[in-house]
Parts: sequence; C-alpha cells; structure tokens
Amino acid sequence: MIRAADARLDGHVRRTPLLSSPFLDEIAGRRVLVKPECLQHTGSFKYRGGRAALSALAPDVRARGVIAFSSGNHAQGVALAAREFGAPAVIVMPADAPRLKIENTRALGAEVVLYDRAGGESREEIGAALTAKRGLTLIKPYDEPQVIAGQGTCGLEIAAQARALGVERADVLVCCGGGGLTSGIALALEAEAPGLRARPCEPEGFDDTTRSLAEGRIVANAHGSGGICDAIVTPQPGEITFPIMERLCGPGLVVSEDEAMRAMALAFSRLKLVAEPGGAVALAAALFRGEEIEGDAVICTITGGNVDAAMFRIALETHGEV
Amino acid sequence: MIRAADARLDGHVRRTPLLSSPFLDEIAGRRVLVKPECLQHTGSFKYRGGRAALSALAPDVRARGVIAFSSGNHAQGVALAAREFGAPAVIVMPADAPRLKIENTRALGAEVVLYDRAGGESREEIGAALTAKRGLTLIKPYDEPQVIAGQGTCGLEIAAQARALGVERADVLVCCGGGGLTSGIALALEAEAPGLRARPCEPEGFDDTTRSLAEGRIVANAHGSGGICDAIVTPQPGEITFPIMERLCGPGLVVSEDEAMRAMALAFSRLKLVAEPGGAVALAAALFRGEEIEGDAVICTITGGNVDAAMFRIALETHGEV
Repeated sequence: MIRAADARLDGHVRRTPLLSSPFLDEIAGRRVLVKPECLQHTGSFKYRGGRAALSALAPDVRARGVIAFSSGNHAQGVALAAREFGAPAVIVMPADAPRLKIENTRALGAEVVLYDRAGGESREEIGAALTAKRGLTLIKPYDEPQVIAGQGTCGLEIAAQARALGVERADVLVCCGGGGLTSGIALALEAEAPGLRARPCEPEGFDDTTRSLAEGRIVANAHGSGGICDAIVTPQPGEITFPIMERLCGPGLVVSEDEAMRAMALAFSRLKLVAEPGGAVALAAALFRGEEIEGDAVICTITGGNVDAAMFRIALETHGEV
Repeated sequence: MIRAADARLDGHVRRTPLLSSPFLDEIAGRRVLVKPECLQHTGSFKYRGGRAALSALAPDVRARGVIAFSSGNHAQGVALAAREFGAPAVIVMPADAPRLKIENTRALGAEVVLYDRAGGESREEIGAALTAKRGLTLIKPYDEPQVIAGQGTCGLEIAAQARALGVERADVLVCCGGGGLTSGIALALEAEAPGLRARPCEPEGFDDTTRSLAEGRIVANAHGSGGICDAIVTPQPGEITFPIMERLCGPGLVVSEDEAMRAMALAFSRLKLVAEPGGAVALAAALFRGEEIEGDAVICTITGGNVDAAMFRIALETHGEV
C-alpha cells in the first residue's frame, strides 16, 4: 500500500532532502541526518496522508467531498489535496482555534465549520450530520490505512536517502502523535531498510506512545491536549497504528518542552529551517538524548513548521544564540 | 566550466529543491518558484564556488592552503571546502566582525586572522604577506572564473527543475552582490534554458549592478558597505562578472530594506525557511515588483540564511503575521 501510495503521490508530493550540519553532529556526538517535512506542501507531512487518502477514493465518492476534524496540520493537508482533485472539503474546527489557522484552511479552498467547544457542541455529531446529508467521506488523521500508507512514503524516501549516504544501521526518530507517520515509516523501513529502526519521540506529559510501548498495551495521557507541542498531541496511540509500532519500533524517546524549543533554535541557526515545537521533538531527542540512541548516525524528522511568529520569537529569545 | 564544476561538486553540493506556496503565488499574481540556497552547506550558495575553486587547484597547490578575505558567507564556504580537502584555510576578517561569524568560521577548521579595520591595517597587505610566506592561493569571492563556474551549478539545477515543471519562459531573480552567482546562473541558463532570463536584485542604496546595467558601464555605490543586506553588498560589479551580466541579464530590480524584511517574514510563514536580509531581496522583488516582471511564472533565489536571531526577531515583530 505504501508503494502504491508513493506512485500516486509522484509529481505531487515534495521529495524533501536529507539535511545535516557539522555543528549538530558535534552536539549529538554522532552524524545527524534531518528529514525536513516542514518543507512539505502545507508545511507538514500531513499532505502525504491527505493526498494518499483522497487519491485512493473512487472518483464518484471523492467528487461528493471529504470531511476532517482538525484545527491543525491535518486540516491543511486534506484541504490542499481536495482542492487539487476539485473535490469539496469540509473541515470541522473549534470556534476558538487560532484565526490564522482558520484563514489558512479557508484560503486552501476548504469550507470551515466551526463548533463551540466550550458550549458543549460535539464535533462528532456535527460531522455525522454533515456526512449523512452530503455523502462526505471522513478522512481520519492517523487511524486509517491509506493515511498511514501516505505517511509511509516519507519512510521510503528516508530508506533510499540513507542508503545513498552509506547509512545502513541507524535509529530513525519520528515526532509522534497518533502514530500515523511513525507506523508508516516503520513499515517502509521494514521492507526497504531493515537496518533502520523507527522510534517515536514525544514531549513530556504527552508520552502515551512511549508508555504504551513500554507496557505492551495502549495507555492514555492524563490530558488529551495542551502544551506547546499541540501538533503532535493526541490522547493515545491509534488502534491500527499501535500494533504496527509495537511490532516494529524501538523504545520511545521523551524530551522536555524546553528542549524542543532549543531544537527549534538550532534548526533556525544550523539548518535554516522553521520547525514548530511538536515538529522539533525528534531533533531534540537526537541532540539531547544521545545516551538512549545507538549507532554512529541518527536520522530524525522535522514533521512540521506551522508555528506562529510569536512562539518562534520566544524560542529565539530563549535559545537564539546557540 | 560550469558543467565541469558540476561534475566535481556532485555528491558534495546539496541539490536544493525548488519550493512554492499558493499564498506567495497569490501575493505575486503569478507562480513563484523559490530556489532555497539557504539550505546549502554553510547556509549559503557560497559553498558551491568555494568547493569549485578548491577542487580545480592542482593537489600540491591546494595542499599548501588557501586564503580568503571575508567576514561572511564566502569565508564559511571556503573554510568548509578546504576542510573537506584537508587543506589549510586562512580567513582574513576585520577584528570587529560579529563574534558568532568568527567562531563559526573557526569551527569549520579555518585559521582566522583578524585585522584592525579602524586602526588602518590593510587586509590586502596582511594577506599578501601571508600568501608569500606560506604559498597560499587566494580564493576571490566573485571575480574568479572557477568561483563563477561553481555558482553557475545553481543555474544548471534551476534549468532542469524549471523544465520538469513545464516552465519554459520566466525571469530568474538573483540576489546580487559582486555578480558571481548572477553571472554564473546567466551562463548556465544561456546554455540550458534560453527562455529563462537572469535578473540581478539589490537593496536600495546598493544598486550598483542595476545602475551599471542601465548605463552600460561599471558604476559604484556611494557607500561600499552598510545596511542590513550586508551579505550581498559590494562596492561595484566585478570586472569579469559585469560583461557577462551585461550580455545576458535583464534589467536589475531594486527593493527596500523593509520589503526584504517582509519577504523574510513570508519565507518564514509560507516556506518554513530562514532567509537573511540580503538573501531575501530576490523574493521581495518577485512579490512586490510584479509590474517589472514578465511571464506567468517567476523563479527567485534565496541566497543565504545566515542571519542572527536578533535580526530575525525584528523581521517577525515587524511583519510576522502576514
């Protein structure tokens, strides 16, 4: 499925490079290779899964439109993919979502339906009513095989790029929310680069996948949302993604929010990249959790760059001259 | 020479992608394709020319070492290329250069020789003495054929990438200092994509190349240095680069420092890239000088991303939510 998704994405997805900096190698004490999915269309890897899911639908089903619940990167990925197919996209967002995210999603051609989170409106009920009335297809953010296959195309690229650089054995650190990208990359590596091992990376307080892997069963976070790494925070790993991660992934890595911010500042100064806090946790793990990593090289994803200017300025103010 | 340089650079230079954003297209009123050389090794295109020049030297000459006068991107490009060849590099810098730039150049393995600009020391005299004593080879920043050939490899990539996207006719906007990159790209496009036309872009007050092209002779700036676009400010176009630009380039484009800062903020929010002020003038011209540009598409370089955190924060504070 990942290879089929890759063929459907060809010519549409951006084939992101594998970047590096001798300054980061020095901090990590090993070679650091960075897969910058912040450079992907819509500023995150989510476009891969959105496009893969849309392109797998029957044309008449797709033409009726798709629906997604998201205030963030998944919304933009689905919206752009739908626009490319000329299909309607309905994105259900909380009314108190950042104005910029609402505007960006609308600018990508999606119809944004707002619901009142505080007032007790249920996004599921709103979505179900819309879906029934208009024949929309729900595109889930991670627990959906075609979405996992689309994210897995990132793993195919990592496998080929690592091979070209002569890196045969390494940990591949993946910023992990529900596990769509992590499980997709893990499956791709199993087939294409068995010496590379995917490992989920999470922020402190939202380490549900790390704890689930350690306990051998799905466990949830105390809080389902919150913190600055919102882009990758989910209540718990997915029903489909967790068994894949359990079979294929190494142990999770957990970093502090402050370390994620420091990694953002280093991505700025050493890679000239804009990373969002959640998108920087794998780089933070590569740089600051070296004792938990094996091998002469480490590969890490920067999964997104959709951070507002105010938050980015805080990262530079706190850790700017590094 | 450009093709030969490209062969020598293969496997060393980073082949930067061609990026885009529908939000930038909307501002410009046409398709905008961005060549992000800020993602090049050392954070600017200068590594291309440095590596091309070093790799063209006879091994015994190279082994004696190279010297460059630069406090900026050329210094880092030469330093990294020299380190890769195991050759000594001496970089002559003013003693009042930013500490971070001195440290970065040293960290790349170069010997940094500081001179007292205010005290009347001449960098040329210091350089000549070192060169004579140690048999070093001077690597000029732009008026040197092998350096131009190296920068021209960026033009070969643009030609191939534009062709793959079906863009046959377009202006190619290049941030221009002494003209090494602009003339190199112009030569590459002449051979590989004759429908693409290079055009130099400069900041107000340092538009020597634009005025030189308009007058048909080399004219200098009133001030040889200054402003926030320091990375691309030179006193006047080169003796070798100017005739090439005069034969092949379209008219220059001039933007304000404020427009360059706004382009930096848009590169942050829409491309997830870090651009330095001088590296953002071509993007600024693409976005804000549309009436001076022809065609349905425009290609522009982001030539570097070596900006300190304080300056970047100012760009985000001034133009952050765009």
